Amino acid sequence: MSKTAPANKIQNEKITPRSQDFARWYQDVILQADLAEAAEVVKGCMVIKPHGYAIWERLQAELDRRFKATGHKNAYFPLLIPESFLKREAEHVEGFSPELAVVTIAGGEPLTERYVIRPTSETIIGHFFARWINSWRDLPLLINQWANVVRWELRTRLFLRTTEFLWQEGHTAHASQEEAQEEARRMLEVYAEVAEDVMAMPVIRGVKTQAEKFAGAVKSYSIEAMMQNGWALQAGTSHELGQNFAKAFEIKFQNKSGTLDYVWQTSWGVSTRLIGALVMTHSDDKGLVLPPKLAPIQAAFIPIYRKDEERNAVLSKVHALAGELKKEGLQIEVDDREGFTPGHKFFHWEQRGVPLLIELGPRDLAADSVVLKPRDGGPKQTQPVEGLPETVKKLLDDMQTQLLSNARKRMAENTVTANSLQEVMAILADTTAEKGGGKFVAAHVRNDPACDAKFKEFKASVRCIPLKDEYDGPGDCIITGERVPQRVVIGKGY
Amino acid sequence: MSKTAPANKIQNEKITPRSQDFARWYQDVILQADLAEAAEVVKGCMVIKPHGYAIWERLQAELDRRFKATGHKNAYFPLLIPESFLKREAEHVEGFSPELAVVTIAGGEPLTERYVIRPTSETIIGHFFARWINSWRDLPLLINQWANVVRWELRTRLFLRTTEFLWQEGHTAHASQEEAQEEARRMLEVYAEVAEDVMAMPVIRGVKTQAEKFAGAVKSYSIEAMMQNGWALQAGTSHELGQNFAKAFEIKFQNKSGTLDYVWQTSWGVSTRLIGALVMTHSDDKGLVLPPKLAPIQAAFIPIYRKDEERNAVLSKVHALAGELKKEGLQIEVDDREGFTPGHKFFHWEQRGVPLLIELGPRDLAADSVVLKPRDGGPKQTQPVEGLPETVKKLLDDMQTQLLSNARKRMAENTVTANSLQEVMAILADTTAEKGGGKFVAAHVRNDPACDAKFKEFKASVRCIPLKDEYDGPGDCIITGERVPQRVVIGKGY
Repeated sequence: MSKTAPANKIQNEKITPRSQDFARWYQDVILQADLAEAAEVVKGCMVIKPHGYAIWERLQAELDRRFKATGHKNAYFPLLIPESFLKREAEHVEGFSPELAVVTIAGGEPLTERYVIRPTSETIIGHFFARWINSWRDLPLLINQWANVVRWELRTRLFLRTTEFLWQEGHTAHASQEEAQEEARRMLEVYAEVAEDVMAMPVIRGVKTQAEKFAGAVKSYSIEAMMQNGWALQAGTSHELGQNFAKAFEIKFQNKSGTLDYVWQTSWGVSTRLIGALVMTHSDDKGLVLPPKLAPIQAAFIPIYRKDEERNAVLSKVHALAGELKKEGLQIEVDDREGFTPGHKFFHWEQRGVPLLIELGPRDLAADSVVLKPRDGGPKQTQPVEGLPETVKKLLDDMQTQLLSNARKRMAENTVTANSLQEVMAILADTTAEKGGGKFVAAHVRNDPACDAKFKEFKASVRCIPLKDEYDGPGDCIITGERVPQRVVIGKGY
Repeated sequence: MSKTAPANKIQNEKITPRSQDFARWYQDVILQADLAEAAEVVKGCMVIKPHGYAIWERLQAELDRRFKATGHKNAYFPLLIPESFLKREAEHVEGFSPELAVVTIAGGEPLTERYVIRPTSETIIGHFFARWINSWRDLPLLINQWANVVRWELRTRLFLRTTEFLWQEGHTAHASQEEAQEEARRMLEVYAEVAEDVMAMPVIRGVKTQAEKFAGAVKSYSIEAMMQNGWALQAGTSHELGQNFAKAFEIKFQNKSGTLDYVWQTSWGVSTRLIGALVMTHSDDKGLVLPPKLAPIQAAFIPIYRKDEERNAVLSKVHALAGELKKEGLQIEVDDREGFTPGHKFFHWEQRGVPLLIELGPRDLAADSVVLKPRDGGPKQTQPVEGLPETVKKLLDDMQTQLLSNARKRMAENTVTANSLQEVMAILADTTAEKGGGKFVAAHVRNDPACDAKFKEFKASVRCIPLKDEYDGPGDCIITGERVPQRVVIGKGY
């Protein structure tokens, strides 16, 4: 262990400390953890590298299982959408047309009807729903799609905002408004559960203001998370579409009383931006920190030896222990690479966010013990080899709980209430507390685009109207003076 | 059971018999099994419906597990490729440029550098490999991508040839030609294993002729399957790219002796076209037939009752038995829908290819038995409830074996040898044997585009030069008279 001790103290020079420049820290963590890199040759796009993609696969598995358990089925719709489709829903085209990538040539010929690359699929899916739905017996229709989408963004940032991103989009049709409302809320809750229970990232469940809702929706819900700099990140959205797209695409059904009616729809999505949220929720100045439930590698063994005879004994023990842990369903790596020091290996896995490093050297071998080093800053501990699977599982479970509790604490500490516009503005303007530091401000504000506009100058916005009012109920709007039922949450956002 | 008996005899009027029109039968099976439908509003595209997508998910799982077991990691690269990238490899651009979809406008502005939607990703991945690879220590680099691609096809057909399709594309870089060759062969073998062991579809492993190889490859391997009409379907390809793309994208590494060298690459892919292959290998005039290992639903219970008191007893037994089967890891559906007759339900699952239907009515309940009806045409059998999981597993295993053996037999019976061009032509011209009926013809043909061209008039081609020469060794080319080492396989193809 003495050999690895110095590694713990090496400052990772490739990662800018959070306190110095949060945005740069974020980018450094991603690059050093080898999650992704910018694809400069394709404007605003990124390459998701194997370690980043493995996290996405874990997220997909957790989400997909829950979608199926709530009765949804996966399907796949075309990437290309006739340009005319977008124009059928007025708000939708207005919202998305500035961001479209347009295919005008195909098979060597100019196209007579141009296609856009899907920025989202309400329109094309609406077209097929109209073909598939005839009667109330066909409802609810509960579909999910895993797909790539393209939105031409001016300012991009790895994972958070990229021209192309990966996501899932749920699209459902129901016989009544009530059922659609229930569905939108149910899927918001699924997202909140994955955020909190799997990503260890606490979220506020809320309703978007009229100014911030999805283009074409009647009502948008979101989960809002707080990053370590106090900024807000919209981590998932779920929309009640009402009958807007049903009317645009003629999605009608015969109801139980025999008359034709338009269906009620929802759509909901989360994307690879969740990985950005994950990074900014847990990571530190040494690099990535991953909650154990999402880590593609949950523990890595670092064998320590100098002489050849040590090597064989140590490696054989390490592989035997790794085998025991794998049998318990844990994701384990043995770093038996030659030509790298234990310190280098330690550093390598640390910046990639592996939750637990397990060192084993000749002295540990003699003592029938291992040294456990948790990634979240918990104490380095010597533990007996006996019962290692249980020790590791307990430690990972505790870490998962601790990460969520740390994040909850941070969110609580950085949420303040304010009772005047001046007070809100002062809080938003204050960046002295920490570099780029932000707060969630709970204030009474009317759900009116004119009110939302007030916060623009600080790149802040009304993040949501929380579903559960944890504050003090009704009050007077700090802008218009009108009575409003509860406080909203205002914050700077990604 | 008497209630369902008539259903067995109902001719599925919506499915054209194979003997009448094979192409139409294929389309009918897909539509009636609800696998997919044409997306007429987007030229040549299709919608993959839930049942079709569930089969794709099963295939993905089987492939992905094997890719990971052979050391590959998943990653994700941009959908859009700068148009100039394709031009860097001369054969590649020549092969793909007629099929490209081009984005010329994005974010409301004409683009100065146009993008093509990836038809395949050798170029964009080559660009990143050049950034990631420096030394022999970075090799081999073993990457796979699950993605959608677009190739603007004039004639499309559900699953077999669509403008957009889903696939995986493996891309690897190696320090030596030998390693790259081994990799290309290894992945061909993975494909053959999935085709035979999972899809129950026998394949011929072979090398493509120069005329048929991938645009930009040095050598292409394929697995070729025989459909029920005797036509060939290329089910997967694996390419040795040599140093072609390495030179085009400057992918160099420092080798062990310290000098710079270009890497040796491979690429390999299978796509949603495998679902088309599956349909045409096993299905019959009643609809889809799925090998149990790929069936999203392996067995469906059809409860039979008339009176209410029968209903409760039957359903409770059916759900209990379904629970037992699920515990064994089987994918089970209970069709307890109201308002549908058992005959209707039987028909419903039959045309969707569920391998086993399990009927249980009041008389079965009294006798502690169930009636099993295998989808592959095996005998209807009454079996005791006791030990049902074992009975069902055995039956599904046997069905899997039987389907492969049937397909092998068909391929053997429909493969003939020919020793003159005239003889080959006569066989290709003969469609009397069965509607659209085709044969694989083994003949001695030189690997030369001028020879390949001879078979075009019958829409036939040299499918491959088999890796394992199962025929009689060297012979004289039936076209040029030159000595060639072995027979090739010629057939009409999809």
